[in-house]
Amino acid sequence: MRITQRVKKILDNYESDNPGTKSNLARILMEGKLGGSGKLVILPVDQGFEHGPARSFAPNPPAYDPHYHFQLAIEAGLNAYAAPLGMLEAGANTFAGAIPTILKLNSSNSLATTKDQAVTGSVADALRLGCAAIGFTIYPGSEYAFDQMEELRELAEEAKAAGLVVVVWSYPRGPMLDKAGETALDICAYAAHMAALAGAHIIKVKPPTAVISLDAAKKTYEKAHLDTSTLAKRVEHVVQACFQGRRIVIFSGGEATSDDDALFDVIRNLRDGGANGSIIGRNTFQRPKEHALAMLAKIIEIYQGKA
Amino acid sequence: MRITQRVKKILDNYESDNPGTKSNLARILMEGKLGGSGKLVILPVDQGFEHGPARSFAPNPPAYDPHYHFQLAIEAGLNAYAAPLGMLEAGANTFAGAIPTILKLNSSNSLATTKDQAVTGSVADALRLGCAAIGFTIYPGSEYAFDQMEELRELAEEAKAAGLVVVVWSYPRGPMLDKAGETALDICAYAAHMAALAGAHIIKVKPPTAVISLDAAKKTYEKAHLDTSTLAKRVEHVVQACFQGRRIVIFSGGEATSDDDALFDVIRNLRDGGANGSIIGRNTFQRPKEHALAMLAKIIEIYQGKA
Amino acid sequence: MRITQRVKKILDNYESDNPGTKSNLARILMEGKLGGSGKLVILPVDQGFEHGPARSFAPNPPAYDPHYHFQLAIEAGLNAYAAPLGMLEAGANTFAGAIPTILKLNSSNSLATTKDQAVTGSVADALRLGCAAIGFTIYPGSEYAFDQMEELRELAEEAKAAGLVVVVWSYPRGPMLDKAGETALDICAYAAHMAALAGAHIIKVKPPTAVISLDAAKKTYEKAHLDTSTLAKRVEHVVQACFQGRRIVIFSGGEATSDDDALFDVIRNLRDGGANGSIIGRNTFQRPKEHALAMLAKIIEIYQGKA
Amino acid sequence: MRITQRVKKILDNYESDNPGTKSNLARILMEGKLGGSGKLVILPVDQGFEHGPARSFAPNPPAYDPHYHFQLAIEAGLNAYAAPLGMLEAGANTFAGAIPTILKLNSSNSLATTKDQAVTGSVADALRLGCAAIGFTIYPGSEYAFDQMEELRELAEEAKAAGLVVVVWSYPRGPMLDKAGETALDICAYAAHMAALAGAHIIKVKPPTAVISLDAAKKTYEKAHLDTSTLAKRVEHVVQACFQGRRIVIFSGGEATSDDDALFDVIRNLRDGGANGSIIGRNTFQRPKEHALAMLAKIIEIYQGKA
Amino acid sequence: MRITQRVKKILDNYESDNPGTKSNLARILMEGKLGGSGKLVILPVDQGFEHGPARSFAPNPPAYDPHYHFQLAIEAGLNAYAAPLGMLEAGANTFAGAIPTILKLNSSNSLATTKDQAVTGSVADALRLGCAAIGFTIYPGSEYAFDQMEELRELAEEAKAAGLVVVVWSYPRGPMLDKAGETALDICAYAAHMAALAGAHIIKVKPPTAVISLDAAKKTYEKAHLDTSTLAKRVEHVVQACFQGRRIVIFSGGEATSDDDALFDVIRNLRDGGANGSIIGRNTFQRPKEHALAMLAKIIEIYQGKA
Repeated sequence: MRITQRVKKILDNYESDNPGTKSNLARILMEGKLGGSGKLVILPVDQGFEHGPARSFAPNPPAYDPHYHFQLAIEAGLNAYAAPLGMLEAGANTFAGAIPTILKLNSSNSLATTKDQAVTGSVADALRLGCAAIGFTIYPGSEYAFDQMEELRELAEEAKAAGLVVVVWSYPRGPMLDKAGETALDICAYAAHMAALAGAHIIKVKPPTAVISLDAAKKTYEKAHLDTSTLAKRVEHVVQACFQGRRIVIFSGGEATSDDDALFDVIRNLRDGGANGSIIGRNTFQRPKEHALAMLAKIIEIYQGKA
Repeated sequence: MRITQRVKKILDNYESDNPGTKSNLARILMEGKLGGSGKLVILPVDQGFEHGPARSFAPNPPAYDPHYHFQLAIEAGLNAYAAPLGMLEAGANTFAGAIPTILKLNSSNSLATTKDQAVTGSVADALRLGCAAIGFTIYPGSEYAFDQMEELRELAEEAKAAGLVVVVWSYPRGPMLDKAGETALDICAYAAHMAALAGAHIIKVKPPTAVISLDAAKKTYEKAHLDTSTLAKRVEHVVQACFQGRRIVIFSGGEATSDDDALFDVIRNLRDGGANGSIIGRNTFQRPKEHALAMLAKIIEIYQGKA
Repeated sequence: MRITQRVKKILDNYESDNPGTKSNLARILMEGKLGGSGKLVILPVDQGFEHGPARSFAPNPPAYDPHYHFQLAIEAGLNAYAAPLGMLEAGANTFAGAIPTILKLNSSNSLATTKDQAVTGSVADALRLGCAAIGFTIYPGSEYAFDQMEELRELAEEAKAAGLVVVVWSYPRGPMLDKAGETALDICAYAAHMAALAGAHIIKVKPPTAVISLDAAKKTYEKAHLDTSTLAKRVEHVVQACFQGRRIVIFSGGEATSDDDALFDVIRNLRDGGANGSIIGRNTFQRPKEHALAMLAKIIEIYQGKA
Repeated sequence: MRITQRVKKILDNYESDNPGTKSNLARILMEGKLGGSGKLVILPVDQGFEHGPARSFAPNPPAYDPHYHFQLAIEAGLNAYAAPLGMLEAGANTFAGAIPTILKLNSSNSLATTKDQAVTGSVADALRLGCAAIGFTIYPGSEYAFDQMEELRELAEEAKAAGLVVVVWSYPRGPMLDKAGETALDICAYAAHMAALAGAHIIKVKPPTAVISLDAAKKTYEKAHLDTSTLAKRVEHVVQACFQGRRIVIFSGGEATSDDDALFDVIRNLRDGGANGSIIGRNTFQRPKEHALAMLAKIIEIYQGKA
Repeated sequence: MRITQRVKKILDNYESDNPGTKSNLARILMEGKLGGSGKLVILPVDQGFEHGPARSFAPNPPAYDPHYHFQLAIEAGLNAYAAPLGMLEAGANTFAGAIPTILKLNSSNSLATTKDQAVTGSVADALRLGCAAIGFTIYPGSEYAFDQMEELRELAEEAKAAGLVVVVWSYPRGPMLDKAGETALDICAYAAHMAALAGAHIIKVKPPTAVISLDAAKKTYEKAHLDTSTLAKRVEHVVQACFQGRRIVIFSGGEATSDDDALFDVIRNLRDGGANGSIIGRNTFQRPKEHALAMLAKIIEIYQGKA
């Protein structure tokens, strides 16, 4: 597998990691249509856990089949496919080696009584399923945030020793945050930074709004004259918060939308702000496959600077 | 590495520790411009976890880059650099051997709902990253204080067996304490003493005010005719509480301030009170590098008795 | 080391313990001026944890130094010295072999929000520091009593397997007990008995008052026509509760007092009631050393039946 | 990574293996110029261990540098590179992800006094170095064959659970075999079969001669009228012995030779006999790089049926 | 600790190692008079084990005291001091941090009945004693060589994970080798290469003679027209065998000699051949201290290119 100079430079930022982890990171970064560019698009399918099967798959019934998502990610030329244990078990053999996979190790659900997640997979599972990475969600701000970080610590230590990549979904929520706060710029940057400090290799956050949520932070943002007028500018700030770009940061596709152009505009802003890419689930697998493929092709072109 | 008589005498106080721990303590005490003097200045960069990236680094944007802090500590001739896992991982290879590092094993954050911290690193991490010490925060007075002390016990036992130094941040807070109580003299001395009893090698507390917080303690302080009129005198008392000076005690740089002279005055009081040194983060890395270097040079001169 | 018949007879009571535990018990019982008599006086210095350094040591500042307490115990010819981890670490090398030590494995503090204690040491620590025993506090009546007993179980099992002695501080407190109840005779005897049942080798309780606290117990005490008129008589009852004298029971020196004669009178009652001895901290190390030595000499004479 | 139908069919043969092992097997089979064809050429560099550095590398001194071999394998478009621990450690970071690697876990040497090998690496090493497979040599016929098979069992079990591929070098030698016997057809087929039975995913043997070594086997071969007249025919038989082609079998390049055409002729026979490929060391890295690249290009063309 | 560019370049060769191992390697390479030059001189004192105390220390009786050797290494400005467990235990506290130490984990003795060594220390010992490295001897050619390599494998894996450096003494001996063979050029280069393949960070061999021992190797050396006429040329070849200089190789001081000038001549040849340094025991500690210090000063000057 030829490794581009751009990717080699990214790998160099992971200077304390072993060659195993770097190899798996290289596999993700060299895969698909964006392979070698330093940009990446990942398909995550943990919606079934989070929102239930019907809310996730009824809009596009073929998506009930786990094989569908492997195929979608492969046909679209994405960099990786992320899902919980059962979802990967149901296709990992058929699609062995066909696309880097990320085993999402914890998940919440709509019936949950607490702002926590259940750990439903292990590093050993990731290895036996041939995954390149583990995925883990933390909820900074939740009453369970410390517990989650401590679970992450143990799993990440084990994963790194086994040469796997650690992807952290950092989703702020909890009593300190109202709805607007969850996607506020200061909170989003903070959540990304905490994931980086906890040792994540790849960080996933939501695209930030221009809101500044914490009173204690408002003065700072004013003083710094940080331009928060465009998403691109705000993304730049999140990239800063990820060790000045030393850690890969990718952004979710946001709420389900039927407005493709609005989505493309978001992607252009992510690109212009220096994001490493997108992780985009609902807005792809809930559309008919041809539509999804066309949309992903366009997204990739945007990251390639062609659209 | 030549070990001065002054440092040897300090090492002798750690009479139950193995030569591994003493070697690492010696590495810290012999490093930098204060090396050999028995005084030390440490750069801690866990503010990103505690207050978020913007509040920590926006005042001096190069500080978003983890390499910046390694370089600042090295150029300033400090004794050690302390930070959480991701921060050290992002520079430990480039700066291998260049300055003793302290892996901060737990951290809180501004979104937290409880007066606790998450453990985000391990003793094995400290060894693989080449650290000289682990760092751990306890919150005496918090509902989680006992849990934290028990986490510390386990980690400290493992660290000591592996020849590492144990640095304890002892920050009182909780329902028994109002804001003034958190930095009250009796509370500060108590917090330092508890860290010493828990087996800390290096104790970090905040500079104490003249307030006496606990009713039960007021009589004692009155009876003892303890002079609490100056910070130097109050520091003397904290040093007493650290086993009559048998344990190294260092003080935080306090709230972010723009008044350098006020800060230097604090340092002079710390020195005159017999403190072993300072651990000073925000007030250095939030200033432009040249300013920070000048300030640290002055602080070091104060500890050297030259300013 | 010659073992007296009296001590041999005491050791025989610990009939299920291994020779390692008996050897360490013999070391304690044969040490100091009371060595061989079956009586013992122990110096405990965990006040710094419980009440803070100033309340503990300001009345006699040399006591801030951990070496002071080793020296006091040795010069006074006591049987053992008990303290938390850091306190022993700071002197265990200088005084290696000089006096049996007891590592106090858990401690509370005045800032605590719950009637619990933090475990701050381990059996491994006790072994590496050359201790003869571990010490552990339980609070019968506290919401945490069961947790504490279960912690004790684990630690005691490990300690006994390693040939260490287990000393249990049994201090009733909690929602079922008012202030008078905490030192009531029925409660005190009950607390001692629970420690014995939990497998303690040496039991420490407070001198009981004549109060009977539990309604359910009052009838029994009345029916039994138990003479509770003198402390000596009440101590006799506590000794009964300690397996009819098959377990060593020692009593605390009580609240800090400036009235030496009152204290001596308590000791005479303890002796006459058949107590095995005293564990006496504040009333010794808070007095000037010469005064403390004189007082301890007198206490020892009382136990020797000479005063 | 697109997986060809040919490779998928091969993966199907490994029906009891987990998707991790299949992914790594796919990585090897899809890599390089033969990627996807079901054929493979591997560069092994354990000659330094087996024959010493000068005999291995003096003919082409740049080969003393471990980076040379990574580069050779990559530039030649091979499927994988196999070497002992130190050799991989010295390049695994620079070439992370660039080519599948096989950690050769045991090695012999020319100074050895027994027909055994030393285990010099572990499955954990393979994971931290990002390897796709472990390699292990057994010597059927040696006094140590059972010990080696039992070492293999343990390592293979661990490797398979972690999703790695197991490559077995099966080299008959020992008191039952004379020099001719070591490469005899019956022995070679037998050695390959034992590796298959022991659970190997990829089997490496030497090209067999027409000799039948075991008396007990001669009758069978005669009776079966097996055509052993050409290497291709004999290779066909070895393929049969590898579960009728259900296991990948590759052949060594044989003794160092300066006759390229002779070597190409061997390769053509291997191809025509249905071998999956070659593992060819000395005959490549001992030639000047340009010569080696030309030779490997030709070998690949032969396997592609173009030469 | 300032790290020179020369040392940084050496550290880069250890590309798969963690920052802990690199930090300890940096400590060794930056220590003493040669600190930063990439050259190193180590004092090894395992002669007492190998030859008995009188043969080792009677020529210079102060050397019976373990402290003597720490002091000699420190006063001479060497890079490290290597010794077996007891030797380090007897001085590690007094000299904590004063010089990097190497715990020699296995040793033979003159009463031994086999060409093997006993493992007398552990990685945990190395950590508690504050060592920068472990040392281990293999005897390529011995009947126990495979066992030794497997012991090394386990210890090296553990040491590397804990951030320690692995130093391998590779001393050929055994039935395949006569006396001349043990120091033959081909054998010495082979021994060094095997240590490198087994994962050694620093390799120690004896200065090679011009003898070529293995018949199978003679042709190679003739064909390669390798100039073996001077020790410098032969050392060049050994450096090649250590991954073309990617691994540090140091040479023993050879047999005890009273001819200082002959020894200096050897050192000049080592330097000119590109050796990284010397490990020199008997020829230093068996001389009076002043003589030894003068001799070591001269050796260091030679490595500095000044003599």
